[in-house]
Amino acid sequence: MEKKRYTLAIMVDNESGVLSRVSSLFSRKGYNIESIAAGTLETPNVTRITIEVLADDDNQINLLCNQVRKLFPVHSVKLLNSSQSIRRELVLIKVKTENSEERNEIIQISNIFRASIVDVATNSLTIAIIGEEEKTEAIINLLQKHGILEMGRTGILALERGAFTLDEDTKVRGEFDYGKNVR
Amino acid sequence: MEKKRYTLAIMVDNESGVLSRVSSLFSRKGYNIESIAAGTLETPNVTRITIEVLADDDNQINLLCNQVRKLFPVHSVKLLNSSQSIRRELVLIKVKTENSEERNEIIQISNIFRASIVDVATNSLTIAIIGEEEKTEAIINLLQKHGILEMGRTGILALERGAFTLDEDTKVRGEFDYGKNVR
Repeated sequence: MEKKRYTLAIMVDNESGVLSRVSSLFSRKGYNIESIAAGTLETPNVTRITIEVLADDDNQINLLCNQVRKLFPVHSVKLLNSSQSIRRELVLIKVKTENSEERNEIIQISNIFRASIVDVATNSLTIAIIGEEEKTEAIINLLQKHGILEMGRTGILALERGAFTLDEDTKVRGEFDYGKNVR
Repeated sequence: MEKKRYTLAIMVDNESGVLSRVSSLFSRKGYNIESIAAGTLETPNVTRITIEVLADDDNQINLLCNQVRKLFPVHSVKLLNSSQSIRRELVLIKVKTENSEERNEIIQISNIFRASIVDVATNSLTIAIIGEEEKTEAIINLLQKHGILEMGRTGILALERGAFTLDEDTKVRGEFDYGKNVR
């Protein structure tokens, strides 16, 4: 059976060991984390972890969400429906450029994809691009023939579309207490 | 003593449990991971993990790098010097907009910061921005007074500036075997 890709947003206290507790739960249950992005939010000591994981079906992922929710210090876990969420990843790609012709070609490609050039050296160009997987995969494929020297990807970051709120007030106050339930 | 922020790029095999092994090493040694971004690269089964961590000094971080390097299946660990690397993070910010005036103001701010608007709803705007911490912190501070409904950050993604290579050939072939040593 083909596995489906799910995106989870997990809010946790930013303390030592929380990331290892979350990721070891995934590996203990036999799930491989496809991508992870975690950064501290403006609310002090809260970190939002976005994880992509493959699972057989919705039941399995709901079970996993419940298990994550029981971990300390996890505040909330939310399953993000791909059609109702904004999904973006950041990719940095360093491409080999042997001559100005090649450099021009890469600049052209970056313009089409609305990527930005963040570094130039004699023999290389580094570009930054944000987009959904399809877009970033497309530019990676195009640049591959020039020779990708180095690359980094953040993994998918996702937010729900619209002003969806479970509790408008707490969110405005920045308490991030939304999403106690999987939707 | 004030702790310094260090950025590590770790290349690992993309297999179940590797992330939990890496992150539990950090927590076992008493380090808190400030941010983490991990995505699979185009080379099948290789994942690049970018981790930000606070440490007392260079000796301590070199020790930590050596410990990470001993883990299986870590290919290479590299300490990225902030002045010689390209550092970017992606931030998605959903802001409350009560009227068109407020919406205009937020569009103005996004234009100045070259952020892009990725979603609009009756009462909210979602913007995507890439930049170094200083830039993203600045826009977050500005948007805070409008009321940030929800936010996600990928954490810093970093690549070395220029075409720095330890072994040009392997990199072009995409083997990513660079950076066995901390520089």
